Amino acid sequence: MIAAQLHSIGDPTHLRVEEIPTPEPAAGEIRVRVRAAALNRRDAFITRGLYPGIALPCTPGSDGCGVVDALGAGVEGPRVGTEVVIDPMLGWGPDRRIWADGSGILGMPHPGTLAQFVCVPAGNVHAKPAHLDIAHAAALPLAGLTAYRALITRARLRAGETVLIPGIGSGVQSFALLLAKAVGARAVVTSSSDEKLARARALGADVTVNYASDPQWFKTLKNAATIDAAIDGSGGETFARVLDLVRPGGRVAIYGGTGGDAKIRPFSIFWKQLDVLGSSMGSPEDFRDLLALVSEKRIEPVVGALYPLAQVVAAVERLESGANFGKVVVTLE
Amino acid sequence: MIAAQLHSIGDPTHLRVEEIPTPEPAAGEIRVRVRAAALNRRDAFITRGLYPGIALPCTPGSDGCGVVDALGAGVEGPRVGTEVVIDPMLGWGPDRRIWADGSGILGMPHPGTLAQFVCVPAGNVHAKPAHLDIAHAAALPLAGLTAYRALITRARLRAGETVLIPGIGSGVQSFALLLAKAVGARAVVTSSSDEKLARARALGADVTVNYASDPQWFKTLKNAATIDAAIDGSGGETFARVLDLVRPGGRVAIYGGTGGDAKIRPFSIFWKQLDVLGSSMGSPEDFRDLLALVSEKRIEPVVGALYPLAQVVAAVERLESGANFGKVVVTLE
Repeated sequence: MIAAQLHSIGDPTHLRVEEIPTPEPAAGEIRVRVRAAALNRRDAFITRGLYPGIALPCTPGSDGCGVVDALGAGVEGPRVGTEVVIDPMLGWGPDRRIWADGSGILGMPHPGTLAQFVCVPAGNVHAKPAHLDIAHAAALPLAGLTAYRALITRARLRAGETVLIPGIGSGVQSFALLLAKAVGARAVVTSSSDEKLARARALGADVTVNYASDPQWFKTLKNAATIDAAIDGSGGETFARVLDLVRPGGRVAIYGGTGGDAKIRPFSIFWKQLDVLGSSMGSPEDFRDLLALVSEKRIEPVVGALYPLAQVVAAVERLESGANFGKVVVTLE
Repeated sequence: MIAAQLHSIGDPTHLRVEEIPTPEPAAGEIRVRVRAAALNRRDAFITRGLYPGIALPCTPGSDGCGVVDALGAGVEGPRVGTEVVIDPMLGWGPDRRIWADGSGILGMPHPGTLAQFVCVPAGNVHAKPAHLDIAHAAALPLAGLTAYRALITRARLRAGETVLIPGIGSGVQSFALLLAKAVGARAVVTSSSDEKLARARALGADVTVNYASDPQWFKTLKNAATIDAAIDGSGGETFARVLDLVRPGGRVAIYGGTGGDAKIRPFSIFWKQLDVLGSSMGSPEDFRDLLALVSEKRIEPVVGALYPLAQVVAAVERLESGANFGKVVVTLE
């Protein structure tokens, strides 16, 4: 089969599309013929060596949608030919609060979805939401799961509340906006790009603030809304600002720290009695709940760009540019 | 009556003990004849102007134990002469998650307990736990309430778990140790003082680590125990270290930030999916639950020093020295 392979670390140009053996499903596994695979920052980080425990060579790719191709021993369904999406969280374990030791994410070291075929545990394979095409369904798993757990399971966002989503445009933040609207919340979003803010308004954002062009953006935002909850994947100064913006008794979910260390005022946390809730990936229950909400509310993941597998390097570079709104999706024959 | 009065800010020496009018209880209030009043950092901060909204002159003092002296209109009990402790949280309101606008803490601007008489809302007056003398009961309210809400209500510490209590010796941290042992948890405490660690062991601490004399203290502590929860009032570097020490899925309650801003790694929070839970004072339910636990488990607050009201300046200086273990209590005739 054809797959994207990483033989050495450096940058996305180290990815090569080449022929490797087609995997056989082990007992308890399902082989999925991948039709579309979405990219995540994790894939770019791996090409640069910015991820713990990198094992080479590897096939990256955590998000995939395709059709069931073969069932390993002991697996009874779904039937070959069924259109499915893959839960990228492997081995979460029985504790809903935290993953088990030895768990991991599909796409290094476990061979990932940037390949014509991928083998995963049967429990990770779920029917594709009927209203989504292959590319949009491929955009769902990792970003949707991350946003769902952070915003709904952890920060307990409810109808009628207002959520702050800083840095709209990334896959997770775009999902956070869709999920917030789906549960009946108001969404306040920020970006340095008027174009991204316009896209966000089209997706239902209630308040948009450009922190680059408005020197008073912090005050503008404070005056515009009472923030019940926030979701942040940046860390750094954004995280510190978010802590200052959320109302007393509010919740802040944090699922990443691409902006690095954060210098925070403990006062904001203890005086306002905030819940600051770390979140990472999601449990099997979170994934099922995400799929149920996506189907019930007919949520359409945001796909910002499509590339064939042969152009996977350009696809990862597009992701890294930060210019994209929504997911970068790689399509396979 | 005689009271400690602050007419100007500067430092604890600005406190004067002088004659002021005895207050009359308004409708819904109870006048308590104060027999003992414990000090808190808040009192010291107020003398230095390090507290928002200072109104002068004022009578500091949040913690008090004494006897019911007079009932305002509409108040039916407890009877005059009953020994009582005072809940220092005024006007918390109906939301258990967060205090209401306009709430405050007894002892500035509302005249406090460093006086022969204090008038407070009837709902703030509770029967003294029977097993405690006046001085130990006076040591209970603010530190006990703060520790109870942070550790039990917010961080949900349970029997069989292990809690990290850095900087043992302060009023709140000493209470945290007592409460942890009362609910059946293991307690790991740190200090720069071997004497304080010995005191902590006498109070039931299971593991003690001196971070000043052990350059490997962080590793020592990591190897000594799996930390399920932690309680911190320091902020600064201690808070950052605590985030790194708590196990995946654990909880960190923070109730203060005397050590200033904290430079934290968001990674610790999101990767381990921590709950970082701000806490401040406590609700009426927290205070009642605290008193019930104190009575049921016959908890003895730690009183480190006793001063008559005439020596209130020396008492606040003792508090500020940091040399004390437990509460500094001021006694009144």
